[in-house]
Amino acid sequence: MRTYFLGIDGGGSKCRASLCTEDGHIVGRGIAGTANPFQSVSRTIESITASVAAALGDAGLAESHLQGTHAGVGLAGVNLPALYRKIADWPHGFASMHLTTDLEIACYGAHNGPDGAVIVAGTGSGAFVSVNGQRRIYGAHGFSFGDTASGAWLGHQAVRAVLVANDGLGPSTALSEALEEIVGGCGVTMVERMMTSTPRDFARLAPTVFDAAGADDAVATAIVGEGAAYLDRTAERLWEHDPPRMSLLGGLRELYASYLSPATLERLSPPAAEPDAGALLYVRTKVLGDDGPVAGPSAGSTG
Amino acid sequence: MRTYFLGIDGGGSKCRASLCTEDGHIVGRGIAGTANPFQSVSRTIESITASVAAALGDAGLAESHLQGTHAGVGLAGVNLPALYRKIADWPHGFASMHLTTDLEIACYGAHNGPDGAVIVAGTGSGAFVSVNGQRRIYGAHGFSFGDTASGAWLGHQAVRAVLVANDGLGPSTALSEALEEIVGGCGVTMVERMMTSTPRDFARLAPTVFDAAGADDAVATAIVGEGAAYLDRTAERLWEHDPPRMSLLGGLRELYASYLSPATLERLSPPAAEPDAGALLYVRTKVLGDDGPVAGPSAGSTG
Repeated sequence: MRTYFLGIDGGGSKCRASLCTEDGHIVGRGIAGTANPFQSVSRTIESITASVAAALGDAGLAESHLQGTHAGVGLAGVNLPALYRKIADWPHGFASMHLTTDLEIACYGAHNGPDGAVIVAGTGSGAFVSVNGQRRIYGAHGFSFGDTASGAWLGHQAVRAVLVANDGLGPSTALSEALEEIVGGCGVTMVERMMTSTPRDFARLAPTVFDAAGADDAVATAIVGEGAAYLDRTAERLWEHDPPRMSLLGGLRELYASYLSPATLERLSPPAAEPDAGALLYVRTKVLGDDGPVAGPSAGSTG
Repeated sequence: MRTYFLGIDGGGSKCRASLCTEDGHIVGRGIAGTANPFQSVSRTIESITASVAAALGDAGLAESHLQGTHAGVGLAGVNLPALYRKIADWPHGFASMHLTTDLEIACYGAHNGPDGAVIVAGTGSGAFVSVNGQRRIYGAHGFSFGDTASGAWLGHQAVRAVLVANDGLGPSTALSEALEEIVGGCGVTMVERMMTSTPRDFARLAPTVFDAAGADDAVATAIVGEGAAYLDRTAERLWEHDPPRMSLLGGLRELYASYLSPATLERLSPPAAEPDAGALLYVRTKVLGDDGPVAGPSAGSTG
């Protein structure tokens, strides 16, 4: 049986799987829905399974090939030992599974190897630095306890601000009209419509918050400014570890750029590749001890 | 069959039921666990049922007497139409059930009748004013979207501040040591231990936040100050309605007193009675058109 490698990048919005051959050529890709163990371990496993099935299908390979496939899986929340164990104990059927945080595989991708620093600002947020085998995570406490500056945090802060404004207990904001239109109601109707909202649902409001900040709405500007200041502080902490490179990743990378301090911006390097390529590099490094980049036509521009 | 009245005060921590005769004498009391529809409608109904059974038992009455009993029920969250309907549709077995917000029954109790204003700062928070039949709720959006200044909010803010401090991404605080001792871990261990925490669990940390603020910890002082400023703004909004009286209620009433503005403090009157007495007065008013106070040995000092 031939040996394959799977790189799996789970996130609050999507789960991406990339399949490559032993010599590093990508032969299949698959995408599935949300894979965030903080929200649901069972849903995460479903999304991983679906993305892997899609990647196998894309490569024209039968499911039986999983037995010869080594998987590198990066997920939010597995910095928590209990969540790590739940995923690690899953009877996955791979030849081997190498599980780590979404942050570490993002770092592998961004810097084409283990060493460097990354700040992720997407649906969730977190940061990671690795220098000569010394690794440290900042944040990554999930939506309930952290995720400051993330899309989910921005959207949630905006909803809170709109509800307070609606009661005359906080400043008026252009976010009120914008969110009422998206959510389809204000006050208790807004609360009702968002009662079962996930971090992903809140994150969908993030571009609206940046739009309002761009139009000089004071409340939106304060929210975005608080997020940017948190990212600046995070960048400072990471830089103290003296990483060879540092990158800002995630869906909000471009939107935050004009709000970050010059000190942060001048230290940022563009990521070499996306996290799913990082997951492949991670698993190949673990299995083959191969620190080189993943070959293939799109290793530098996946996703 | 004799007619009875039940006053039920549901809250994030406890559900209290008081049973009185038609002439207003309290003959039984019962207490059960959490009754917050925002958290769980089924648990709320269980707690109401348990508190009523305890009150009947306390009065030495068989369950069959419920058929002759009119119940006034005050609950958080029933300002949301969907939650109101879920509770109102419950096959309760009472002669009649009069359902309203925990805030309205608190107002009835505090002012011995329908008119007045109340601010509640307990496990949750909210405010209510009623003047000549015109009623308005402020806040009461639940833990996820509001509850600023509440015990759950204070505890949650403290946990977030401690996690940020632990990462060196926010100021150090005496709350770190205090919360680590209570929770039994810091960083991801704290996140793991609090992942399934309810608003009630967070509210248990509120006295610790006041303790740290009292000892001049800057982070705790900022959290308590933000809560107090919100209560001050709420008091101003309520006062604009020109209520005959205004009271501050809830488990944090005493703890907040020294942080509120002089303008707020001079407008506050002590509550005449607790919310469970208010629930009795509410249901008697609805059924009998009786605006007078509930008689009985402990009508003014229940709970």
